[in-house]
Amino acid sequence: MRIVKFSYKKKEEWGVLEDGIINILKQSPFSKIIRTKKHIPLKKVSLLVPAQASKVVLVGLNYRDHARELNMKIPREPIIFLKSPTALIAHKQRIIYPEGVKRLDYEAELALVIKKKAKNIPQKKAHEYILGYTCLNDVTARDLQKKDGQWTRAKSFDTFCPAGPWIETVLNPSKLGIKACLNSKTKQDSSTSNFIFSVPYIISFISRVMTLLPGDIISTGTPPGIGKMQIGDNITIEIDGIGRLQNKVSL
Amino acid sequence: MRIVKFSYKKKEEWGVLEDGIINILKQSPFSKIIRTKKHIPLKKVSLLVPAQASKVVLVGLNYRDHARELNMKIPREPIIFLKSPTALIAHKQRIIYPEGVKRLDYEAELALVIKKKAKNIPQKKAHEYILGYTCLNDVTARDLQKKDGQWTRAKSFDTFCPAGPWIETVLNPSKLGIKACLNSKTKQDSSTSNFIFSVPYIISFISRVMTLLPGDIISTGTPPGIGKMQIGDNITIEIDGIGRLQNKVSL
Repeated sequence: MRIVKFSYKKKEEWGVLEDGIINILKQSPFSKIIRTKKHIPLKKVSLLVPAQASKVVLVGLNYRDHARELNMKIPREPIIFLKSPTALIAHKQRIIYPEGVKRLDYEAELALVIKKKAKNIPQKKAHEYILGYTCLNDVTARDLQKKDGQWTRAKSFDTFCPAGPWIETVLNPSKLGIKACLNSKTKQDSSTSNFIFSVPYIISFISRVMTLLPGDIISTGTPPGIGKMQIGDNITIEIDGIGRLQNKVSL
Repeated sequence: MRIVKFSYKKKEEWGVLEDGIINILKQSPFSKIIRTKKHIPLKKVSLLVPAQASKVVLVGLNYRDHARELNMKIPREPIIFLKSPTALIAHKQRIIYPEGVKRLDYEAELALVIKKKAKNIPQKKAHEYILGYTCLNDVTARDLQKKDGQWTRAKSFDTFCPAGPWIETVLNPSKLGIKACLNSKTKQDSSTSNFIFSVPYIISFISRVMTLLPGDIISTGTPPGIGKMQIGDNITIEIDGIGRLQNKVSL
């Protein structure tokens, strides 16, 4: 099932997308999915970030092929970090190139949206806490990342977290093709079968640190091929079984 | 004026505290402070974190005396990082010592609560965006901070962000005595006159990266004297003109 969050006539709604038509939901999909009898064509609405993120938690190096490319050891534990929720933008919204930033990179990632409150979750039960999966672009000011040491500033500028276009609820996250295309040229092209840490491991690990809440976003790291974007570029994150998240870089 | 957030008979309220009596407010204090005719003694309520933080942004090294102690150069720009909002706890709530953590430290900090949406704010106008000031303890798993490099995990465990007891709205943040006392023994004892970056500079700097929202918390770094806590310890952060934030470390 594909779950969308959208805005129509200035009202925010959730819906289920089938063949280009959205079936509007009665409420947010976290506790229960209750369909109304209302429908609206996808092309009439503006998509929103399909989440209500009180936090966005990301995992650093998590692809074996990326670790090889960087000549880095396989980490024993995930390195986690946070992006500000104010960085989130939806499919088709603009990534703003901040003044003073010298290098702005895309990073294609598979993200998941949390379904219910999660604390100290064992790996075996992790699937119960996932509403579904979406595409995420971990936009990074690479120069500031190196300069600061801490990654927060480099990754938390407003518009630095495109996520969407929707949530796919039925998906095996362990064998998905994942790509980043810059102006239709493929730049990242890998598979989540290269994950160092699986989705259940990541949820279990993070939930032992911090309580995860419904609508929180967890992102699972990026494969090899990261690179820079310029003003005017179109960047697309494409994941098998989910779809394409497209954003343009703008002043 | 002292603004408190509290829970009474399972209802969350905001109020103004005067001589041990809370004057209950009609609504949250961010847009406007509107008093009701209802009053309740402070001792009858449970204090809550005096904020509604969509994010908690902290500044690294910001005291000259701390930089000297560590033999570190004065940084040219603040290093910022985020704590998960789920780490927040109120005055008198317990700090939980996580399993597997080997060293748990206190860090006394002056924090401020944002009054209204702030983006690209010049230093001169920063005061307009501050509701007031409170005490914050940037609890840190020092072993994990060193191990991870990124500080997120070490600083984002549930209960790792005591903040309170209330917001003091009228205060000059540039000359305040700040202390941490462990079981009544003074461990940190400095003044915000040692700040490397002033409060207006910090607000301006962060607001050029991310939009700040009403109720967000910004914390301004810790002075020299950080050290470890054990289970059973009482830790108190005391700031002139605000008061004392007390928490006990527990299993």
